[in-house]
Amino acid sequence: MGSMLRKSSLAILVLALAAARAQAQTDPLPSWNDGAAKKAIVEFVTTTTTQGSPKFVPPEERVATFDQDGTLWVEQPVYSQLMYCFDRVPALVKAKPELANVEPFKTVMSGDLEAIAKLSMPDLEKIAVATLTGMPVEQFNAEVAKWTASATNARWKRPYTELTYLPMQEVMKYLRANGYKTYIVTGGGQDFVRTYAERVYGIPPEQVVGTAGETKFGYDKAGRPYLTKQARLVLNDNGPGKAEGIHLMIGRRPHAAFGNSTGDREMLEYTGAGDGARLMMLVLHDDAKREYAYGPAAGLPNSKVGTFTQALYDEAKKRGWTVISMKGDWKQIFSFEK
Amino acid sequence: MGSMLRKSSLAILVLALAAARAQAQTDPLPSWNDGAAKKAIVEFVTTTTTQGSPKFVPPEERVATFDQDGTLWVEQPVYSQLMYCFDRVPALVKAKPELANVEPFKTVMSGDLEAIAKLSMPDLEKIAVATLTGMPVEQFNAEVAKWTASATNARWKRPYTELTYLPMQEVMKYLRANGYKTYIVTGGGQDFVRTYAERVYGIPPEQVVGTAGETKFGYDKAGRPYLTKQARLVLNDNGPGKAEGIHLMIGRRPHAAFGNSTGDREMLEYTGAGDGARLMMLVLHDDAKREYAYGPAAGLPNSKVGTFTQALYDEAKKRGWTVISMKGDWKQIFSFEK
Repeated sequence: MGSMLRKSSLAILVLALAAARAQAQTDPLPSWNDGAAKKAIVEFVTTTTTQGSPKFVPPEERVATFDQDGTLWVEQPVYSQLMYCFDRVPALVKAKPELANVEPFKTVMSGDLEAIAKLSMPDLEKIAVATLTGMPVEQFNAEVAKWTASATNARWKRPYTELTYLPMQEVMKYLRANGYKTYIVTGGGQDFVRTYAERVYGIPPEQVVGTAGETKFGYDKAGRPYLTKQARLVLNDNGPGKAEGIHLMIGRRPHAAFGNSTGDREMLEYTGAGDGARLMMLVLHDDAKREYAYGPAAGLPNSKVGTFTQALYDEAKKRGWTVISMKGDWKQIFSFEK
Repeated sequence: MGSMLRKSSLAILVLALAAARAQAQTDPLPSWNDGAAKKAIVEFVTTTTTQGSPKFVPPEERVATFDQDGTLWVEQPVYSQLMYCFDRVPALVKAKPELANVEPFKTVMSGDLEAIAKLSMPDLEKIAVATLTGMPVEQFNAEVAKWTASATNARWKRPYTELTYLPMQEVMKYLRANGYKTYIVTGGGQDFVRTYAERVYGIPPEQVVGTAGETKFGYDKAGRPYLTKQARLVLNDNGPGKAEGIHLMIGRRPHAAFGNSTGDREMLEYTGAGDGARLMMLVLHDDAKREYAYGPAAGLPNSKVGTFTQALYDEAKKRGWTVISMKGDWKQIFSFEK
């Protein structure tokens, strides 16, 4: 009996080790430290995709939405798309030399970073309209693709598209492996993000919802139709616009939503207002060493972009949203580390 | 040798019969008569989905768009959605009795079909705005679902949702079975069509592009967020708006597009402007007996809805679009026949 017991114990131990090893091998979130955030994600996926679970969600209804800037990739010191707009100004001035002496283009051309940082919102909008609209869609796509392939972030000396957060890439893959459709719902330009979303995030163009302008249908001299990007906005996909954009573009309420700022508040509220299991998460940038630290919620000054206010933090607590600490929850931030 | 030859011949005959039977059993378009239209569909699917074909289309790029009214279901004598609007007027007048003496609501309430048929476009727009906007999205969806389940078409005495064309249902299934994402791109209301598209066509809400109004994010007394349908249009998904809507909502150029009227012209032009294999088809209503016959292209008077002009017919010939004759190409029109 003693021997048998020992044999049984040994068998149990072997099985337990095997199970632990299998679990370690198949951990869908290896860049996450164990903790409340990781647990919330795994529990949400398990409870909504296990047949017979009271909170089971049919596959066709599995929708998860992700803000981009500050949630999927670095948004400091300025949004990457704004860097694109600044980088386009010289070509713009070359094509229209009269702009060289017109503000805000004059300031951008001066290269004076301090002056550029002080540009007002209306000035930034002028630059955005001048660099993002007025051309055929195909031309715009080609210009963005060229920039994306060559421009690099000043701090990491890498293409912007490499500055995505590995833990969030894992969350998206984990959700997709469990039948969720992952969408980007961004205040950034829909056409801009669509040029690289499939390659960078595995998200196809039709699953990118963003701030969108009108296009205008017309014909070239050969009678071939094409679309020209217009300045007039169709969707301002920020704040309440994110919930409205989700309805317009998806037509389903998400079961999971991820953001990092007040611009994502209404998206998370709209998601949380549905019944059954819903997952709402906010990324808190509290890691000055490995990335950035900003937002009053982290006891830190706010930044011009990605406002994580104390009010947002309080609402998260009240509504049961999960705050992700980059410092505490993320073992690794970028895929190029290690 | 003679015997062997006979045996071989027999074997070949058996194989040929088996192949023919298999083909007959697996004909993806059994409601279509053999002819140019059916052949164009099968050749398009084969050439774009066969590995190694010079016109192979990667699965993620396989997008096919379908107009709804007159292409997927009956549009005569008026669009079903307009019937919905008329049917909603009594409830509207009950809620706001002052409307009973205001045009065009007074005319609709009179039940005078001749007078109703003569209502002007601005009058119809007033009725549409009054019955399709101003309420929370959920309330609208519930009202449409209730109507769809009970309202019947006067000629066939069946729910409108049964009046879909079986041959087009087969085309959509055939395309989906070959990796195509099928989209509805309709001048009808996006929210309206989304309420039944999955059940009726197997097309999920996120693949319905239609005329869309703004929604407005707000909170109820309990602090629960909801969206209210607004009168202001975001997308007028008709004519050039269909190409613009496809770019806005899908972000890819379709490889196949199906329509039946001048409102679909730009969608087909935009589709045809892409390289590789593209399939553009127009349904011609030339079957007065089994459905309706209208449009100058059929040598028939035009109708108020679904304008198939001679110019559209000429453009189809010029650009190599295929015209589907309901009379000649469709063996069966509705699934309830037989």
